[in-house]
Amino acid sequence: MAIRFSSTLEAIKGSDLGPLLALTAKPEVISFAGGLPAPQTFPLKELTECAVKVREQDGAGAMQYGPSMGFMQLRQDIADRMNRMYGPMGMDKVEPKNIIITTGSQQGLDILGRVFLDKDDVVLIESPSYLGAINAFELNQPKFVEVPTDGEGMIPEELEKILETTERVKFIYVIPNYQNPTGICWSLERRQALMALAAKYEIPVVEDNPYGDLRFEGEEINPLISMDPKHLVIYSGTFSKTLAPGMRLAWLVANDKIMAKLDLVKGATDLSTPGTTQRECAMYMENYDFEGHIKENCALYAKRRDAMCEAIKKYFPENVKCTYPHGGLFLWVELPEGIDARKMLMACIENNVAYVPGDSFFPASKKKNYFRLNFSYNDESVIEEGIKRLGEALKNYKD
Amino acid sequence: MAIRFSSTLEAIKGSDLGPLLALTAKPEVISFAGGLPAPQTFPLKELTECAVKVREQDGAGAMQYGPSMGFMQLRQDIADRMNRMYGPMGMDKVEPKNIIITTGSQQGLDILGRVFLDKDDVVLIESPSYLGAINAFELNQPKFVEVPTDGEGMIPEELEKILETTERVKFIYVIPNYQNPTGICWSLERRQALMALAAKYEIPVVEDNPYGDLRFEGEEINPLISMDPKHLVIYSGTFSKTLAPGMRLAWLVANDKIMAKLDLVKGATDLSTPGTTQRECAMYMENYDFEGHIKENCALYAKRRDAMCEAIKKYFPENVKCTYPHGGLFLWVELPEGIDARKMLMACIENNVAYVPGDSFFPASKKKNYFRLNFSYNDESVIEEGIKRLGEALKNYKD
Repeated sequence: MAIRFSSTLEAIKGSDLGPLLALTAKPEVISFAGGLPAPQTFPLKELTECAVKVREQDGAGAMQYGPSMGFMQLRQDIADRMNRMYGPMGMDKVEPKNIIITTGSQQGLDILGRVFLDKDDVVLIESPSYLGAINAFELNQPKFVEVPTDGEGMIPEELEKILETTERVKFIYVIPNYQNPTGICWSLERRQALMALAAKYEIPVVEDNPYGDLRFEGEEINPLISMDPKHLVIYSGTFSKTLAPGMRLAWLVANDKIMAKLDLVKGATDLSTPGTTQRECAMYMENYDFEGHIKENCALYAKRRDAMCEAIKKYFPENVKCTYPHGGLFLWVELPEGIDARKMLMACIENNVAYVPGDSFFPASKKKNYFRLNFSYNDESVIEEGIKRLGEALKNYKD
Repeated sequence: MAIRFSSTLEAIKGSDLGPLLALTAKPEVISFAGGLPAPQTFPLKELTECAVKVREQDGAGAMQYGPSMGFMQLRQDIADRMNRMYGPMGMDKVEPKNIIITTGSQQGLDILGRVFLDKDDVVLIESPSYLGAINAFELNQPKFVEVPTDGEGMIPEELEKILETTERVKFIYVIPNYQNPTGICWSLERRQALMALAAKYEIPVVEDNPYGDLRFEGEEINPLISMDPKHLVIYSGTFSKTLAPGMRLAWLVANDKIMAKLDLVKGATDLSTPGTTQRECAMYMENYDFEGHIKENCALYAKRRDAMCEAIKKYFPENVKCTYPHGGLFLWVELPEGIDARKMLMACIENNVAYVPGDSFFPASKKKNYFRLNFSYNDESVIEEGIKRLGEALKNYKD
C-alpha cells in the first residue's frame, strides 16, 4: 500500500507557474511578475520602535497564546479607521466583534473557502480574477464562473443572467478597487447594481480591498460594505500593501452568523495570528502617522505607474492594449488574439524580462492573450529598461 | 434564499467547551484548564534584542513577502538542532528542504488534515488524544479510531488488529512524549512496535512532539523519526513550549513527496508565516543559550509538577487515580466510573477551580470519567490552593 493523499490534493497538481517564475529569479532578469511592495516604503525605524515598546509594555501578553479572533486593541483600531473612512459613505458602524484578524488576507480567503464551499459549489468571480483567491478557494474544488467584466466592473445584466440560471452559487468574489490583475476600479453605478443583485438573490459578497488605500488620483468610490443593508458583504482588508507584507496581518469583517463560523475555522487552523505582530501593528496605528505614510506610498507608486505607462507608449507595438490604473500595483496587457502569453514568456525571459501570463487569472475560460505587469517594486529606470526589453520581445515574437 | 455554509461547517457546531471555559475566566477561579506556558519563562530581554537586530540587519527582508516553506536560516537552524539531538539516536540526516515552517503546530496539523483526509477517511489516535489535533482534522470530517492505549503507549496487538481490519486508514497520529492530555511517555519497545507496524502496512505516522524538550527526569527515549527507514514519519515540532507561543512558530519534517503537498497547501493557506517572527527565532537560536533556557523551564515546571502531585496525594479522595508525568505540561485524572467530569465541572467552578473535562479527548468513545490538569501556568501556592478546592469538590460531589 502506498501513501494516499486526499482527493483534492491528488487532483490539484500545483501550478506550473512556480517553476516558470523560478527562471525569473536570475539577477539579470527584470521581473514585473511579483506583487511586491517597494521595500523603501516599509517604515522600519517606526516599526522597530513599536517592536521594542510592545515587548517592554506587554511582553508577556505578546508572547502568550491569544484569542482566535485577534488582539482586541488592533480590532478596535481597525474598526475605528473603517468607521472614520466609510461611516460618512453610509457604512453601518463596524464593531470589533465583527472583525477577525488573519495571518495575511490569503488566510482570510482560505478560511472563507472552507466556511462556504463544498466540492462543485459555485463561486462567481470577475473575469479575470486574483490568482491567490482562486488558489485558496480551489482547495475546496468549487466551480468558478467568470462574470463578464469590462473597464467599470462586472456587467450587471450578465451577472443577473448567471444568478437566475446557476445553482449552488455560494458567494460572489470581487476586488472593486484597482483590481488584481487588471488594475481597474469599479464605477459607483456598477457597485450599486452588484449590491442590488446580491440583496435580491441574498448571495454573500466577498469584497477584497487590498488596494483601496493606494489611490493615486480621483475621489474614493463607496465600498460595497457601505451599500449593504442586509449585511451580506464580507470585507477583506490587509496591512500588506500599506505597512509590510512580512508582518502577515489582515482582517475580515462579517455579520455575527458568518463570524461565528470564521472564528471556529480560524481557531482550528492556527489558534491565532502571532501576538507580537498584532501588537506592533496596533502600536504603529496609534502612535504614528499611518495616513501620511500611505500618502507617501501612493506618491511613490504613482510615479512608477507613470514611468511604466510612458515606457509602454514608447516601446510596445500598437496592437497591444493596456489598462491605465489609478491606483494599486498592477496593470494588465492584452495581446492580439492568438498569441499565447505563457509561451511568449520564454522568449521574454531570454530577453531578461518577465511578467505573469494571464491564463491563471481565468480559471474557467483560460484566455491566453493577456499578461500582468507589476509597477510597484522596480524603480523608474529599471521599469523603463524592462519595458524596453519587453517591447523588443513583443515585436520580435513569432508564435 | 438564506446564506448556506459548507456541509462541514453546517455539521460542526463548535465545541460547547468554549462557553463552559469562559466561566473559568473569573479572577477568583483557579484554572488548570489551559495549556499555557508560565509567562516568566519567556526570554523577553533576549527576544527584544533579537527583534531590534533583525530589523536593523535585515529589516527589508523581514518585512517583505517570503517563501512559503519558510525562512531558510531558521529551517537550517532547526535541521542542525534535530541532527545534533536525534542523529546519534539513528535519525537519517534532516535537510532544510524537508522542513516547512508553520504558524504554530496547529497550522501544521491543519495542513496535514487537508493533505491526507477526505470525509470518512480514518485517523488512528491514542485513546485519549489531543483536542487541538482532533479539531484540526475534524474540518475534513474523518472517522477517528481510538487505539487502546496504556501507560506505555498504544498497545501493539490492538493496533495491528485495527490495521488488519480497517479500510481507509490515512495516518496514525501520536504524541509519544508526555502526551496531551495524559502526560504519559511511550516506552522504547512500544515505539519500536508502532514503527514496525507502520512500515509493514506503509501507513504515515504523525509524530507530534511539542513536549519532548520538557523532560524533567530520565533518559530521552528515541523519537519515532529515528526508527523510520521508510520515511513514513511526519514530525511536528514547535517553539511554543520552549520559547513563546505568541510567536506562533512551529515546523513539520516530511519526505519529499509529502513536503510538496504540504508546501502547496501552506502557500494557498497564508502564503507564509511572518518574516519577522521567523527571523527573531533564528536570531535567538544562533546567539543565545536556547538549551540552557530550556533546562531552566524544565526546572520550573518540575517543581510545579511536584507541587501538584503532592497536593493531589493530600487532598484528593482515594478512589481518584492520576498519572505521574515525567515532563510536559499536563496530568490526567481518572474518576470512578459513572462520574461525568463535564457535569462535575459546574460544581468545581462554584468552588472556584477549573479543569478540562476529558470527553473531548475521546472523539469516538466519549468517555466521561476523566479530566485534564495543567501544572505549568500557576505557581506552587496557587496549585496547592486549587487542588485543595478541587479535592473538596470531588469529595462533596454527588452526580
